[in-house]
Amino acid sequence: MKLVHVSRPVCSPRLATRHFSTTARRRIIKPITDLPDRTKPSFLERPDATLLSLQWPSPPRNILITKKKRTPGITDSLIEYTSHLSSTYPGINIILEPESASEIHEIVPFPVYTYEPAPPNGAPAHLSDKTDLVCTLGGDGTILRASSLFSHATAVPPVLSFAMGTIGFLGEWKFREYKRAFREVYMSGASDAYAKFDAPESNTRPPAPTSPDDPLDKPLSYADIRGKAMGSNRTARILLRNRLKVGVFGPDGTRINSSVDQDTYALNEIVVHRGASPHLKIVDVFVGGRFLTEGVADGMIISSPTGSTAYSLSSGGSIVHPLVSSLLLTPICPRSLSFRPLVLPANTPITLRLGEKNRGREVEVSIDGRSITGGMGVGMEVRVLGEHVKSDAGEWVGGVPSIVRGTDGIGMELKEQDHWVGGLNALLKYNYPFGDQDTSDGGGRT
Amino acid sequence: MKLVHVSRPVCSPRLATRHFSTTARRRIIKPITDLPDRTKPSFLERPDATLLSLQWPSPPRNILITKKKRTPGITDSLIEYTSHLSSTYPGINIILEPESASEIHEIVPFPVYTYEPAPPNGAPAHLSDKTDLVCTLGGDGTILRASSLFSHATAVPPVLSFAMGTIGFLGEWKFREYKRAFREVYMSGASDAYAKFDAPESNTRPPAPTSPDDPLDKPLSYADIRGKAMGSNRTARILLRNRLKVGVFGPDGTRINSSVDQDTYALNEIVVHRGASPHLKIVDVFVGGRFLTEGVADGMIISSPTGSTAYSLSSGGSIVHPLVSSLLLTPICPRSLSFRPLVLPANTPITLRLGEKNRGREVEVSIDGRSITGGMGVGMEVRVLGEHVKSDAGEWVGGVPSIVRGTDGIGMELKEQDHWVGGLNALLKYNYPFGDQDTSDGGGRT
Amino acid sequence: MKLVHVSRPVCSPRLATRHFSTTARRRIIKPITDLPDRTKPSFLERPDATLLSLQWPSPPRNILITKKKRTPGITDSLIEYTSHLSSTYPGINIILEPESASEIHEIVPFPVYTYEPAPPNGAPAHLSDKTDLVCTLGGDGTILRASSLFSHATAVPPVLSFAMGTIGFLGEWKFREYKRAFREVYMSGASDAYAKFDAPESNTRPPAPTSPDDPLDKPLSYADIRGKAMGSNRTARILLRNRLKVGVFGPDGTRINSSVDQDTYALNEIVVHRGASPHLKIVDVFVGGRFLTEGVADGMIISSPTGSTAYSLSSGGSIVHPLVSSLLLTPICPRSLSFRPLVLPANTPITLRLGEKNRGREVEVSIDGRSITGGMGVGMEVRVLGEHVKSDAGEWVGGVPSIVRGTDGIGMELKEQDHWVGGLNALLKYNYPFGDQDTSDGGGRT
Amino acid sequence: MKLVHVSRPVCSPRLATRHFSTTARRRIIKPITDLPDRTKPSFLERPDATLLSLQWPSPPRNILITKKKRTPGITDSLIEYTSHLSSTYPGINIILEPESASEIHEIVPFPVYTYEPAPPNGAPAHLSDKTDLVCTLGGDGTILRASSLFSHATAVPPVLSFAMGTIGFLGEWKFREYKRAFREVYMSGASDAYAKFDAPESNTRPPAPTSPDDPLDKPLSYADIRGKAMGSNRTARILLRNRLKVGVFGPDGTRINSSVDQDTYALNEIVVHRGASPHLKIVDVFVGGRFLTEGVADGMIISSPTGSTAYSLSSGGSIVHPLVSSLLLTPICPRSLSFRPLVLPANTPITLRLGEKNRGREVEVSIDGRSITGGMGVGMEVRVLGEHVKSDAGEWVGGVPSIVRGTDGIGMELKEQDHWVGGLNALLKYNYPFGDQDTSDGGGRT
Repeated sequence: MKLVHVSRPVCSPRLATRHFSTTARRRIIKPITDLPDRTKPSFLERPDATLLSLQWPSPPRNILITKKKRTPGITDSLIEYTSHLSSTYPGINIILEPESASEIHEIVPFPVYTYEPAPPNGAPAHLSDKTDLVCTLGGDGTILRASSLFSHATAVPPVLSFAMGTIGFLGEWKFREYKRAFREVYMSGASDAYAKFDAPESNTRPPAPTSPDDPLDKPLSYADIRGKAMGSNRTARILLRNRLKVGVFGPDGTRINSSVDQDTYALNEIVVHRGASPHLKIVDVFVGGRFLTEGVADGMIISSPTGSTAYSLSSGGSIVHPLVSSLLLTPICPRSLSFRPLVLPANTPITLRLGEKNRGREVEVSIDGRSITGGMGVGMEVRVLGEHVKSDAGEWVGGVPSIVRGTDGIGMELKEQDHWVGGLNALLKYNYPFGDQDTSDGGGRT
Repeated sequence: MKLVHVSRPVCSPRLATRHFSTTARRRIIKPITDLPDRTKPSFLERPDATLLSLQWPSPPRNILITKKKRTPGITDSLIEYTSHLSSTYPGINIILEPESASEIHEIVPFPVYTYEPAPPNGAPAHLSDKTDLVCTLGGDGTILRASSLFSHATAVPPVLSFAMGTIGFLGEWKFREYKRAFREVYMSGASDAYAKFDAPESNTRPPAPTSPDDPLDKPLSYADIRGKAMGSNRTARILLRNRLKVGVFGPDGTRINSSVDQDTYALNEIVVHRGASPHLKIVDVFVGGRFLTEGVADGMIISSPTGSTAYSLSSGGSIVHPLVSSLLLTPICPRSLSFRPLVLPANTPITLRLGEKNRGREVEVSIDGRSITGGMGVGMEVRVLGEHVKSDAGEWVGGVPSIVRGTDGIGMELKEQDHWVGGLNALLKYNYPFGDQDTSDGGGRT
Repeated sequence: MKLVHVSRPVCSPRLATRHFSTTARRRIIKPITDLPDRTKPSFLERPDATLLSLQWPSPPRNILITKKKRTPGITDSLIEYTSHLSSTYPGINIILEPESASEIHEIVPFPVYTYEPAPPNGAPAHLSDKTDLVCTLGGDGTILRASSLFSHATAVPPVLSFAMGTIGFLGEWKFREYKRAFREVYMSGASDAYAKFDAPESNTRPPAPTSPDDPLDKPLSYADIRGKAMGSNRTARILLRNRLKVGVFGPDGTRINSSVDQDTYALNEIVVHRGASPHLKIVDVFVGGRFLTEGVADGMIISSPTGSTAYSLSSGGSIVHPLVSSLLLTPICPRSLSFRPLVLPANTPITLRLGEKNRGREVEVSIDGRSITGGMGVGMEVRVLGEHVKSDAGEWVGGVPSIVRGTDGIGMELKEQDHWVGGLNALLKYNYPFGDQDTSDGGGRT
Repeated sequence: MKLVHVSRPVCSPRLATRHFSTTARRRIIKPITDLPDRTKPSFLERPDATLLSLQWPSPPRNILITKKKRTPGITDSLIEYTSHLSSTYPGINIILEPESASEIHEIVPFPVYTYEPAPPNGAPAHLSDKTDLVCTLGGDGTILRASSLFSHATAVPPVLSFAMGTIGFLGEWKFREYKRAFREVYMSGASDAYAKFDAPESNTRPPAPTSPDDPLDKPLSYADIRGKAMGSNRTARILLRNRLKVGVFGPDGTRINSSVDQDTYALNEIVVHRGASPHLKIVDVFVGGRFLTEGVADGMIISSPTGSTAYSLSSGGSIVHPLVSSLLLTPICPRSLSFRPLVLPANTPITLRLGEKNRGREVEVSIDGRSITGGMGVGMEVRVLGEHVKSDAGEWVGGVPSIVRGTDGIGMELKEQDHWVGGLNALLKYNYPFGDQDTSDGGGRT
């Protein structure tokens, strides 16, 4: 789908007139370049806590919403969610993926923005300059896909994830909590900034047609917001997930993982794999510039801690907490009895090189589950480094800022570890006990 | 508890007279040497089937019942079960473990037999000469303990196992099925033998006091049995579990695993372990008489397929179906990256030897969870061989004949694999799926 | 390459005349259909031994020799080996793979036979009806490829394997032993058969040009052979490697692993794999006709014990001795923490089915490393059963009869386990010890 | 041996006179309380480097040397090493373990200091207040033992380790490099501090008897040292190994891992294990104060990254680089298919609690291979936290400061990763390749 195509109605007064004479605006898919520039939040350390506080200098306006594909009912949820945002919050602009935009823009009573699809091995232009906040409706795959839209950006917007039916390791919120969740994020501003907050544009939104019972449905004006930031105790909590900085280079040194000459960021992992070839790959592994080993295997995974519960786990890697600043090197089906997974410091450069011995053999390289196209073969190098998320000046930048739940939904303050421990048990069925066996008897273990 | 003590009333007319004038018989604990000799069944191959058919030459009479320890309600179940057997089947003799015998002999209205406790590293005398059938009330640990009562016998009686609350991998029957289960086993005789069956003694059992609704509660006479064997289609099904034949020898060649000079049989495994010593053990492993490797580890397991779901599994061994004639060699926490579990032919002799390098270090050797006492140290050898369960003449002998369910309780004929597959899933939570994750999305595996 | 093509010199009198005026015959590549029918040996049990004895009813004549590809010097070895056979043994016919045949038939002074290449998913026609003995020059891959030439035959000829530079797990002999090795195999006949042996055709081979020092180089006549069979103590030893019997069926029940409607045999394993697709495969696993589990994984391996040291080992499977009659089910990178490898009885049918959930996803199926072409996808079934190697009449048939060394080359009789144990240590670096660490000190394990 | 005994000569002029009239001083074992107080170095960050620089405010004087036990020739090396130090460097005081002190004090021509043996569960008194530098002669076990002498100290002196025959993962230096190694460490002072360095006491050491060829043998005076600090480029390099801070508490809340009420520090790991008991332990695991799981296992390991190549590795844990700030939780033989090793942030408190279900069961707790004595059982808690090695003020403190080689001995500057990568390959035989197999052939993987 091309953006040109979906926005064609803009140029078609006949259609607009016939169906939506008074609200022609709403059928239009607008380009994101029309949007005001992005509002970047800060991430502040909280005393005695490992999660960070989200702090907006002014309320977020440009909201990108992505949804899971091929899922019954998901479009209805998208419409419900965007309608709530649009009718409740002042100055909200809704950005959708091109496919979603063309799917719902004629149905919803507000304008929809979208972007040009990404070029091969690239990310959509302008998206990271315009998006204040990302909301995902789906599961871990949806979050991963949303993250990949910012795979060439050093500063990813905060991500608010709603699990839709499926439970995910990364997604924190249930969809039925969406009003509370968004309010918490929206109001997570600096008290002083919000105190003197003055609307950047007149807030002409008409009052909602009905008088809603739920206070979270009451339309806000900028006047409502002023001075209402929730304060440091009630700010949204951020888990800054480190990403991997990846460069893929052809035998001639040409970068092949990016349409522009820059690194790609991965949230989960980079995989080198034999793909459909029956032949094992022979991969030279360099750690910190020093040759470590020649891996003969189906493939090799370099994973972030976030990715440690994904492919790396399937391949025998350890589960690493997302706050352990590290990289995982995990072989896939190695032809060796002694190739164990490694956990390395995040700032250690790792290089995987396909040497001469692979002559005539194809190889697949994928970043967060998406294949790199072109140029894979002998002489290729994959260079990976963990992303720095704290600048020299002590600021937290980079990573994927994931908004995690601060309360359990019934008012109980959640502890730092709750999210992760909960995921291990509920999702991975970690240390799932055997059926109740007879261990108290004389025979010891049975 | 000593047998001498519990059987004292037999020799003490004064006591008997005083307390049990009308029912003196029932309070007596009798020695098993008083019992008629054991009735040994045959195990016949069934066409197109891997399980065997149980075939009694005449109905079983001497029934050993063992129960799980320290379990609320278990004694009531024992009384219920033995009372049913005693009141329903002609000529039944109840054998109990000494502890159980002294616990219930004054309560039940029939005589109870028991045996002298086993000497160290030994098995109870006479038990294998007198027991026709073993019934266990408990879980896998109870079965393992029952099996160890026959650890020096080449022919173990069939074992009918009831799971009591706990699910077990080895136990097949639910306790509420006990009437049907026992009837099936009891009647599993050769048609011709049972046809001409003539009671070995007069069946003077009085009719049960009430007229039971359940036909399985109706007392049988030998006349009822005659000609009523269930035929080959309805015989009880036997899974013959191979055991391990173990000899443990001191540095001077003296056997130390047995009070008499004979091998011990293990149902699950033999373990050599560092025990409380902090030091790794250095174990020379010989396979088929040839030196295989020097294992430096916490310990070493030699397991039967039946034991493959016990300690060996915890230590990283594969799950091996009980019908794969094999031995497993599984290291415990080896100091090597490349010490993988091995599966060897059952008829391959394996020797573990503690060489000179262990000087000054203690070692623990245990057989089915019971420690061998005395003489463990440098120069010791553990020699293991899988038990032959088919004689040269083609007869099935040896092993632990486990009676498995032939129907699922609602009349459906169970297939051969059902028992094992069911155990994997219900008990081991085999391949327990992750929480429902979002895999249909673009991002592939997350 | 087509046979028609390689034999083109036959029709080219000019070339023939110019170079080989008197021996034009030798330049001809003949079709194997010209050869006498195959001589099938028996495999006899030896007392107290697990290996079998090879026994020819008459000396083998049709010898297939395969060699490793792309290996320097290997063609010279092939010429040396075939020349020795041809000049030393009466009535020997050399069969080569089409490529080898066209490579050397103009160089060697004896006729060379070859066959039509196999059709897709098939095996070469007539080959199994004409081949008495297979010799491989190469490594395990070469043996596997040779074995796959008989992937549709129930009776594979004995295989004599020479390791060429590379050590293999399956290959037993060093190339420099080839004279002794072939003599041992050639003379491994029944004493009585060989005693009355009468040449099936006149032995007109001219004496070798030189008088060789090595008695193994002395040309034999049928008269030499008569009565010279080595007797039961000196027969070649056979390890009968069970294969897997595989049927692959499309969603409509059509068989797709074979050009004819028959099973394929695999020596190592059958693999179902995601291949180049990023998506996990969802495979329903049935064991003995009963549903075992839904595997969500990169793939699934069903391996023979011989294959247990190949892909299955890389994927975490146990090492299973080739004499343990079994099948291994090993998942590849499963999305579950609890999907452990299984070892099942060889006679248990295993079915892997790709259910509806894989809609739109491709899958790769390969047998011994060769991809099945066509029809792979939703609804497909792979059905596997271990090959029976002992007939109901007690005869040993089927499997891949691998000729193993009976002595260590310096006259020492090798024990049964030596081959396998040697392979574990030399090839797999099994339990390779850590560098010499300081374990005698107080700190215990470090 | 008791210190009271060995130090008796000091207080016994009669004995001293009788036996050592001319050289009484040298034969005396002095208490460490006689020594000047410890000189504490700083650890400075180096630009673009992960290793730190050692910087003495004044040259180290009190040198503790520990040696491996039961090793031929090790005492000679100890004498050679201490004699070199004593005769070459001014103001050096030699501290030995009590056993070593009594072994060599009569042989060497300089005084020897020692300390009272540690009380149960404790560390030797005063040692950490008096020791400037630790040198170990042995392997990893010796380093571990040396480290345990400071198991109650927050600031461990730098450790210079010499491998004696055995290769170690932790030990960096070969014994034949001892002169160069010690010189490098000794001179690793701040340029300005050493520039104005003035001897704290008169340096009355007589010149060495001979004029040595090796400049490293030339006795130094404090005048030589002044202004000679090697500068920041040539300082000794420090790998600060994080330790684990451990508290073990009885059911009544009493601390039982320490004679005083303080934490113990572990370099490798804390282990809870069933020991000689056949019964599995049931351990409740809390992470960050939240219940994670109930582990049913032989035991549980909490390991530092340094310990990740020790017991945790044997038990299936990943290999974690010592600079990854983390804790490992690794189960030992768990009765679950899904209990995977975890890597957690170093600042996450982990608690292991033995709940009611273990009633009647013993448990073993050991810290760096040494058993805790007393009080282990139901209700016990082990509380662990990673040590902070950077203070809030940004200073590096704590940990075990291991001196690593900055050059490879032939002048090549070593990179940061060399030490660790070298250890993986040389010591652990990491990813040790299979014997050269035949993979270039058609059959793919074999």
